Amino acid sequence: MKKSLGARTLLYPTPVLVVGSYDKEGRANVMTASWGGICCSSPPCIAVSLRKVTFSYGNVMERQAFTINIPSEEYLRQADYFGTVSGKNEDKFAATGLTPVKGDFVDAPYVKEFPLVIECKVLKTVEIGIHTQFVGEIMDVKADEAVIDAAGMPDIEKLRPAIFTPESRSYYGVGKHLGKAFSIGKR
Amino acid sequence: MKKSLGARTLLYPTPVLVVGSYDKEGRANVMTASWGGICCSSPPCIAVSLRKVTFSYGNVMERQAFTINIPSEEYLRQADYFGTVSGKNEDKFAATGLTPVKGDFVDAPYVKEFPLVIECKVLKTVEIGIHTQFVGEIMDVKADEAVIDAAGMPDIEKLRPAIFTPESRSYYGVGKHLGKAFSIGKR
Repeated sequence: MKKSLGARTLLYPTPVLVVGSYDKEGRANVMTASWGGICCSSPPCIAVSLRKVTFSYGNVMERQAFTINIPSEEYLRQADYFGTVSGKNEDKFAATGLTPVKGDFVDAPYVKEFPLVIECKVLKTVEIGIHTQFVGEIMDVKADEAVIDAAGMPDIEKLRPAIFTPESRSYYGVGKHLGKAFSIGKR
Repeated sequence: MKKSLGARTLLYPTPVLVVGSYDKEGRANVMTASWGGICCSSPPCIAVSLRKVTFSYGNVMERQAFTINIPSEEYLRQADYFGTVSGKNEDKFAATGLTPVKGDFVDAPYVKEFPLVIECKVLKTVEIGIHTQFVGEIMDVKADEAVIDAAGMPDIEKLRPAIFTPESRSYYGVGKHLGKAFSIGKR
């Protein structure tokens, strides 16, 4: 039996996206968001929604660039902290001891210690209610060599990203392999 | 040491979204997509990107409505199948024995057997490269009573949704609880 829970942002899984940007003075900032995902295959694009009140919103608007950084489980505390304070008042890199690195392709910093980073140029912005959705064209993805599989692509079991759950506001890890896509459903 | 993997749609996790729609004759169809996510808190919205060649694209355009259905692990084979054939040629509900139910709030069917379903009205469409992004305003979320926690919200450990991994094209389950959001990073 299904129960109606009303009009709510309930989706499983949602990602833990750490958005990197530079402010007007060139200071690196990061904030954490879970409203986003891949939105196009060609050109490869990723969408992330930010509210206008965030410090990152102004940065991304100004530079038309951002990075998406995926923390492994071991950096989840830092990623959580990035979502609780504003870069207006705090230097989040200094506070955590993590290292900002200028992107090779875009005018935005990535987090050196995180195992997967995505460099994006703003392709378009879309106003949706209280959020602005930034559609970023992916210019490059970089991964730590330690999380790359034999085929040269990231291995999620080595990457160990986190899942965010809306409403219950918790983080979960990745579980066991369930099967190959475009394959297990073949008849 | 980071290795550049080029401009690719690599993100972890991405969701397994089963999109429900009616065609012109009122036949229920479903397709599976992983390019999507929540894109606004108020009004609550979810985005999913479809290519114009898909049967679902025409359906959603025509009816301006769709559902997002989250399969539990036990229905992953059916969800995978939904992503491998077109509703133009096959009745996917008949083929799987799953049950389409007309949404209470929108002109689209949901999958009765899946533990979480989201009813959406198209708020806007955004052209991004080869994909059209449908921004759906969430009108209602329904969950099986068996997956609801004491606070009245879905419990991801009971829901057991799947994760899709791009490039390696695999499915994974949800792992262990890692901590509370907006909490574990507090100093």
